[in-house]
Amino acid sequence: MSVKHLEHIGIAVKDLDVAIPLWEKLLGVKCYNIEEVAEQKVKTAFLRIGEVKIELLQSTSDDGPIAKFIEKKGEGVQHVAFASTNIEEELVRCDAEGIRLIDSKPRNGAEGLSIAFLHPKSTLGVLTELCEKKTK
Amino acid sequence: MSVKHLEHIGIAVKDLDVAIPLWEKLLGVKCYNIEEVAEQKVKTAFLRIGEVKIELLQSTSDDGPIAKFIEKKGEGVQHVAFASTNIEEELVRCDAEGIRLIDSKPRNGAEGLSIAFLHPKSTLGVLTELCEKKTK
Repeated sequence: MSVKHLEHIGIAVKDLDVAIPLWEKLLGVKCYNIEEVAEQKVKTAFLRIGEVKIELLQSTSDDGPIAKFIEKKGEGVQHVAFASTNIEEELVRCDAEGIRLIDSKPRNGAEGLSIAFLHPKSTLGVLTELCEKKTK
Repeated sequence: MSVKHLEHIGIAVKDLDVAIPLWEKLLGVKCYNIEEVAEQKVKTAFLRIGEVKIELLQSTSDDGPIAKFIEKKGEGVQHVAFASTNIEEELVRCDAEGIRLIDSKPRNGAEGLSIAFLHPKSTLGVLTELCEKKTK
């Protein structure tokens, strides 16, 4: 088992210009990074509290996954991400355990991480991400 | 600022008997506590990964907040909870900052914590809990 800790919570927001100051106020920490992930059609902003990051996600397109999430469920927690020391091994294990994968191989995420998503239909509605620091 | 770290994520589930083995499999850790919080009409189960707990919540009543959440949004992340070293001070601060409170005073939660919720209308859809270990 290579899952070590909760790396971040991904929160779908309509507008980072509103969400960043709100979360800075709530947690008393400053946003330390804003980054666009073109492949996912999102602009992301990060705050850190303890060992966990809060990732605020604003869609850059009407047909992006975050725009669709907000249309269906409203703003709120969109995914949870667990740090793994070996994401490829973890994907093989999850697949063998009957957990449906969205990504069978890791791809590039924000903050220099390799990421892969498990399908929320296999995880009782919780879109779950595995992530690993890229060192290879 | 007395918010220190993410204490737990609360996940609304229909059936703990399904959800507990799934999350044990996902995270590779065992559920260490099952507890009923009658006031909230929930039965809760806890797993720990790193410094964060995963709280699985099953409604014990059709009109409880978890049953209503699942009816509206489906199973998934229902709230996030941040540990505070002084929850009463934090509630005063949030109120002064214009954040709407569900609980103006702490009440009893699971795992021997004092808890209070902020209103998701003030936190961009994220039901946010503050919690503190009861030592008083």
